[in-house]
Amino acid sequence: MAEHTIKAFDEEIDKLRGLIAEMGGRAEAAIENAMLALQRHDKKLAAQVVADDKRIDALESEVEKLVIQIIALRAPMANDLRDVIAALRIVSVVERIGDYAKNIAKRVPSIATNRRTLEPMSMLPSMGQVAGEMVHDALNAFAARDADLAVAVIERDTVVDDFYDSVFRSLVTYMVENPKTISECAHLLFVAKNIERIGDHATNVAEMVYYAATGQTAPDRERGGSGQAED
Amino acid sequence: MAEHTIKAFDEEIDKLRGLIAEMGGRAEAAIENAMLALQRHDKKLAAQVVADDKRIDALESEVEKLVIQIIALRAPMANDLRDVIAALRIVSVVERIGDYAKNIAKRVPSIATNRRTLEPMSMLPSMGQVAGEMVHDALNAFAARDADLAVAVIERDTVVDDFYDSVFRSLVTYMVENPKTISECAHLLFVAKNIERIGDHATNVAEMVYYAATGQTAPDRERGGSGQAED
Repeated sequence: MAEHTIKAFDEEIDKLRGLIAEMGGRAEAAIENAMLALQRHDKKLAAQVVADDKRIDALESEVEKLVIQIIALRAPMANDLRDVIAALRIVSVVERIGDYAKNIAKRVPSIATNRRTLEPMSMLPSMGQVAGEMVHDALNAFAARDADLAVAVIERDTVVDDFYDSVFRSLVTYMVENPKTISECAHLLFVAKNIERIGDHATNVAEMVYYAATGQTAPDRERGGSGQAED
Repeated sequence: MAEHTIKAFDEEIDKLRGLIAEMGGRAEAAIENAMLALQRHDKKLAAQVVADDKRIDALESEVEKLVIQIIALRAPMANDLRDVIAALRIVSVVERIGDYAKNIAKRVPSIATNRRTLEPMSMLPSMGQVAGEMVHDALNAFAARDADLAVAVIERDTVVDDFYDSVFRSLVTYMVENPKTISECAHLLFVAKNIERIGDHATNVAEMVYYAATGQTAPDRERGGSGQAED
């Protein structure tokens, strides 16, 4: 490429990375606020998380348009082309993470409506925090192409999976003992599942980062692994 | 493009469409077999669905490689480039549909292990059938660029959503009355949710087809709509 084209290309890549970073920051905030709304029975905050998700979706569209523009105008070569296409995959995962946070927020009005706190909820804030940190670190690993940080994210996914198993078991026990709470607990089951899926998606991002940085497939997680995600 | 380049380009596009059609066919089969395995408590068939999902994942990778190759070698212009990038989105949705079917299959061993049939399961086969047909029609609409068929798919999503609401309510009632089945019913809740998500994703494909064929956003579904998907 001519020098001015290279400069324009670099500027567009910077813009692309900026959009991805903004999306990631918004997805992290969505997780944090959805979990806060759940703990505080705060329907207003929950509604805000749902509304804010539109901006995450819009950012994904912006990235897609920019990618098409970069490819059409700059005709990037092999490695650059792969990087640009990888950006599409990353934002599609971040968009899904935002959807999971939105889904948690949507369930807030159906859970503990009478301000009674359900016992099995006690584990969810810590579970949400680990998943949120995984998203944060996965996106930092992407920004810095840091394979070691990516591995750390991948390894932490078993923590979230173990949390999920505990929450599932304790919810089922609690439902048996407190049949009146079954409907709320059913919503909590989905909340726990959504957090577990956020962990899986952070892991997917980390696996892509590891592959891009090293050219090798990331070491397997204890359970799951790329392509093992269930939904 | 020179004539021989156009011919090569057309051949690659045909190959791309062939791979997408194969993926779609396998995803449909996965849904059908997962639902059969659930009804028949057939753990072997369920294990087969889980194993077969690897091929769907592999097809997605093949599509991604072919897209990069087409872009790198043929440098397609505006509309062609958009079509080729759209193929990436379609296969990413089909891959997720395959994952939902796999997830249903994975739950088979935890449901009705003693060959007793749970009452709320009675609605699931019909619900699964509607969702499967939506996937089938969405992919046919894609292959034929048929906007009318795409609209029909989008409209049918409310049927699946209504099924989901009925199943959710009847499962909660059933759990209250039969506390011993709570663990199995919790798995069934996730099965119902997975089928509902398959319907949402078929709708997403249909919306992409409609947009590509008409240049306009598809008419809103009664509930949900593009970007409203919850996970």
